[in-house]
Amino acid sequence: MRINPKLTLVGAGPGDPELITIKGVKALQRADVVLYDALVDPELLQYAPQAIHIPVGKRAGRASVSQTTINRLIVEKAKRHGHVVRLKGGDPFVFARGFEELNYAQSFGLETDVVIGISSVMLPGYYGIPLTCRGVNQSFTVLTATTSDGVLSDEVIHAAKYAPTAIIFMGLGKLDRVVDAYQAAGRGDLPVAIVSNGSLENGKVVSGTVDDILEKAEQEKPAAPALLIFGEGASEANSKTLYPKLELQEIA
Amino acid sequence: MRINPKLTLVGAGPGDPELITIKGVKALQRADVVLYDALVDPELLQYAPQAIHIPVGKRAGRASVSQTTINRLIVEKAKRHGHVVRLKGGDPFVFARGFEELNYAQSFGLETDVVIGISSVMLPGYYGIPLTCRGVNQSFTVLTATTSDGVLSDEVIHAAKYAPTAIIFMGLGKLDRVVDAYQAAGRGDLPVAIVSNGSLENGKVVSGTVDDILEKAEQEKPAAPALLIFGEGASEANSKTLYPKLELQEIA
Repeated sequence: MRINPKLTLVGAGPGDPELITIKGVKALQRADVVLYDALVDPELLQYAPQAIHIPVGKRAGRASVSQTTINRLIVEKAKRHGHVVRLKGGDPFVFARGFEELNYAQSFGLETDVVIGISSVMLPGYYGIPLTCRGVNQSFTVLTATTSDGVLSDEVIHAAKYAPTAIIFMGLGKLDRVVDAYQAAGRGDLPVAIVSNGSLENGKVVSGTVDDILEKAEQEKPAAPALLIFGEGASEANSKTLYPKLELQEIA
Repeated sequence: MRINPKLTLVGAGPGDPELITIKGVKALQRADVVLYDALVDPELLQYAPQAIHIPVGKRAGRASVSQTTINRLIVEKAKRHGHVVRLKGGDPFVFARGFEELNYAQSFGLETDVVIGISSVMLPGYYGIPLTCRGVNQSFTVLTATTSDGVLSDEVIHAAKYAPTAIIFMGLGKLDRVVDAYQAAGRGDLPVAIVSNGSLENGKVVSGTVDDILEKAEQEKPAAPALLIFGEGASEANSKTLYPKLELQEIA
């Protein structure tokens, strides 16, 4: 049989396995190999019973697979088995290095496709926090708290001064320094919300203001992965009316 | 039969009907009434053959339904028929007034749920444009070109000066003024891409730089709805390797 090496990047969405798209499911059904991240719900692998499943995620307590190794695995498995689906949490292009994987695969002659997914950027809506709202804010900025070198990003300082609403990835461990930046910018009263564990069953939100969020976080101990929202909309955060609790039914 | 009035906001995604989530499909299957936007593919209504279908979208050549009327319809139909699914293009909380609809429904005692969707914010990935990319940019700002009053947003001026990458909604008709703002900020060389018609079959991308994008748009005539991307990543735009062209299969 002739092998047609191919990579499809698929965004699995922000945790809840039902937040994958129909198109993402179809890609899984046509996979020969699935390389999946630690943040991806293993339940999604049920859509690809025919495929080889390979975990490549980084998770505490397990040796992480380097990006270089992931890139090589994609090409190696595609040349050997055919269609590799790279199943990534959220969207493949938002702080997810999807572009690097795509370019690497293309440089080895692989056919490539992309199925975009719901980024964690969309998660505030799950907790009643509008990303935009007439009369409140008409823009938002998405950033990481730390650069790839692990230091506090200059863009946090900039967002603290200027961004009406900032959605900060990978910021929980640096919350104190982000708060410092907002206080230095004179925005101590700004509402803040910490969305912890995304759209999972144990997801929760901790909310307050720049001036008291450290104390609230100390009490309520949100866990990583977490998203920080600094902006007026965060005042609407409501952990009691969590929207993810739909009753589930089988697709007819 | 006792009526349980309920509203579920569902994000239908950015055009391609297969970019709705499994959870969105399930909500449609449990709908008594579907109120849908003009940008939503009518094919999605096939998931709700049991429901009443009511178009409420704004589209050229047809009288638009005001937001007030939509709010009232939600409450009226839910009280009369039960479960109203409000099917909105993209994500319900990104420039989509979902929050207003949710609050209005709650004020009348309706139970509410939200199924987040893929916002058009994610569309650049479809065209090979990474929203973030190591070594290139670690943040992006999402904004509208015009305020709700129809004038050029101050945030465009600000983004032109400071945002490494800006994703601008509803900007095609004001492209010349957005370009003016970037030129005034001394960023004439910055890559620009116009993503037209989202993830639809006739979707396309027009790319260039701040200094030549008006000329390119004049030649290639991208249509609304369109998203403007101003940032280094836009240089990767490639209309020839459109990623949406997956072959489709039935879900097994």
